[in-house]
Amino acid sequence: MVRSGSASVAAGPTLAVVAREAGVSVPTASKVVNGREDVAPETRRRVTEALDRLGYARRPRFDVAKVPGLVDLVVHSLDTSWSGAVLHGVEAAAHDAGLEVVVSAGAGRTRGGRPERSWLDKLIARGSSGVLFNLAELTSSQYAWLEQHRIPFVMIDPVLEPPPGVVSVGAANWQGGVTATDHLLALGHERIAVVAGHQHTVCGNARVAGYRSALASAGLRHRPEYVRHAGFDESVAHRRMLDLLDLPEPPTAVFVCSDRMALGVYEALAERGLRVPDDVSVIGFGDLPESGWLSPALTTVRQPLSEMAATALRLLVRMMDGERPESTRTELSTRLVPRSSTAPARGTA
Amino acid sequence: MVRSGSASVAAGPTLAVVAREAGVSVPTASKVVNGREDVAPETRRRVTEALDRLGYARRPRFDVAKVPGLVDLVVHSLDTSWSGAVLHGVEAAAHDAGLEVVVSAGAGRTRGGRPERSWLDKLIARGSSGVLFNLAELTSSQYAWLEQHRIPFVMIDPVLEPPPGVVSVGAANWQGGVTATDHLLALGHERIAVVAGHQHTVCGNARVAGYRSALASAGLRHRPEYVRHAGFDESVAHRRMLDLLDLPEPPTAVFVCSDRMALGVYEALAERGLRVPDDVSVIGFGDLPESGWLSPALTTVRQPLSEMAATALRLLVRMMDGERPESTRTELSTRLVPRSSTAPARGTA
Repeated sequence: MVRSGSASVAAGPTLAVVAREAGVSVPTASKVVNGREDVAPETRRRVTEALDRLGYARRPRFDVAKVPGLVDLVVHSLDTSWSGAVLHGVEAAAHDAGLEVVVSAGAGRTRGGRPERSWLDKLIARGSSGVLFNLAELTSSQYAWLEQHRIPFVMIDPVLEPPPGVVSVGAANWQGGVTATDHLLALGHERIAVVAGHQHTVCGNARVAGYRSALASAGLRHRPEYVRHAGFDESVAHRRMLDLLDLPEPPTAVFVCSDRMALGVYEALAERGLRVPDDVSVIGFGDLPESGWLSPALTTVRQPLSEMAATALRLLVRMMDGERPESTRTELSTRLVPRSSTAPARGTA
Repeated sequence: MVRSGSASVAAGPTLAVVAREAGVSVPTASKVVNGREDVAPETRRRVTEALDRLGYARRPRFDVAKVPGLVDLVVHSLDTSWSGAVLHGVEAAAHDAGLEVVVSAGAGRTRGGRPERSWLDKLIARGSSGVLFNLAELTSSQYAWLEQHRIPFVMIDPVLEPPPGVVSVGAANWQGGVTATDHLLALGHERIAVVAGHQHTVCGNARVAGYRSALASAGLRHRPEYVRHAGFDESVAHRRMLDLLDLPEPPTAVFVCSDRMALGVYEALAERGLRVPDDVSVIGFGDLPESGWLSPALTTVRQPLSEMAATALRLLVRMMDGERPESTRTELSTRLVPRSSTAPARGTA
């Protein structure tokens, strides 16, 4: 109903129907929907149950005939090229849909050590039509809050597996891990290590699983000592690479699960007087703009961040129209970006 | 009045006073303020004159007691680390002021080759409280439009000199040019070239002027052949650096007026088998996150983008409260960030 500029196609019951069902006045039902505190707990419970039972969908407050709708993008931090790519995709898709984007960096903001909830309160107060979260880890009470206020939301590349029913968009991380490892295998490498991200994240696990699958398909045995977790941190990656080089049989090629960690890997190799790609081949993951600034330029697996963000916006718009996506998880494909940091293994060229 | 959560401290006359002054009805005056088309030209002129004469200031439409105010940030493009730093500064300062930020990439968007005006129309329709423009080149009719609709706005690092009275925030570009050149002089270099940006931009001119001032203070003669303009373009910078290396007396040090152009300069030096900093010292300008990814890491002059953006937001908030800044141009200081791309001139160490 937002896109069409007409408010007449709203799905579901009105607030008046909800109020009647709950046995309360419309202003009281409105208070519950808008997150106001001045409602008795028992009344809040009755209204919430009625909202659930009737499948009430929030309506945007603005005059849709005149003013473009607003959607919210909540990100962890704004000063990364990662968030720039996400914002680029969201803004362009929103523009196409006749929507505007309110940006908050609140997801990671704390006050006195505790996560600040003001961004959520603001979403409720303004009557947000819908929210995109990027790289956010929401608490179960925040999920419940969004659900209670009937605010449609989509996660872009969630760090942890979201609860059942939550809609998310990500990269095909497993396939990307296969792509990276296959590239190194095709160059004749057999001693291939992986500098991985966090062990318990959606993307970290899937990329390493893709690496293992590719090795297994090539008939190579799995060497646990070749898998090092560095938590997506550049300086930890630096130390893990030094550890790998200290092995009796050091790797001739490394799949680094993020471009940022590749920076630390390059430094470790330089410290040991090893050249990229002559001595060790390096492939990254992400294709951040920075990866072209490395010398030699980094071969990597492109993660389509802007496209993921645009897809999430389009899914959100459909949910704002009352639709449910067919699938709660959408994955967009990755692709190899060959540059100068990978070369044939010695003796195979 | 937005920050305080109260609508009672508005400066200047009400719309009713303006309507009386212009001899029209309040709805007609409202139409003019809100950019509606259905007003006779003569009536529009009378209302606009009354608005000017009385110093009418727009009021935000939202209920300030309940809903955080919105300010707009219009940028050229979103997927650069530059815009990320700006957005980071704007969002943090807006959060502190109890405001939220609507982001549009519309300033550079075109439709059929002509600049699209939809972002301006959207600002008017929503009743924007205030706008920040980053790296935007507004046309004179766009300036007039903003003026007519009484929308306060501030330019962040405008490309061209804005018209008189327009408020802007930038870096101390001249001082930054002095800082970069003084650093090379202190290392004993005398043959110092500059790879500059655009000739007719605010920042491009001032940085080169700073370079010249520093040389003059050191008693070195100005060599016109050492000044090459590359329009902030990486591949043009690459060619200009090759030209400099072809001179009978090539430079031993180069001040490159943007970090991005330094990437092209590094490539040109590598092509000629010259090492940074052993053969040629390189200093950039900007301190983009990418500059740390170069090898060797780039010595540069830090331009405080996030701080510039936050300062612009705070100026805008004061203008939304009816104040006028004491100065139309605010410049924030730059500082040297020494890394590994500069070294003493040969024979001086």
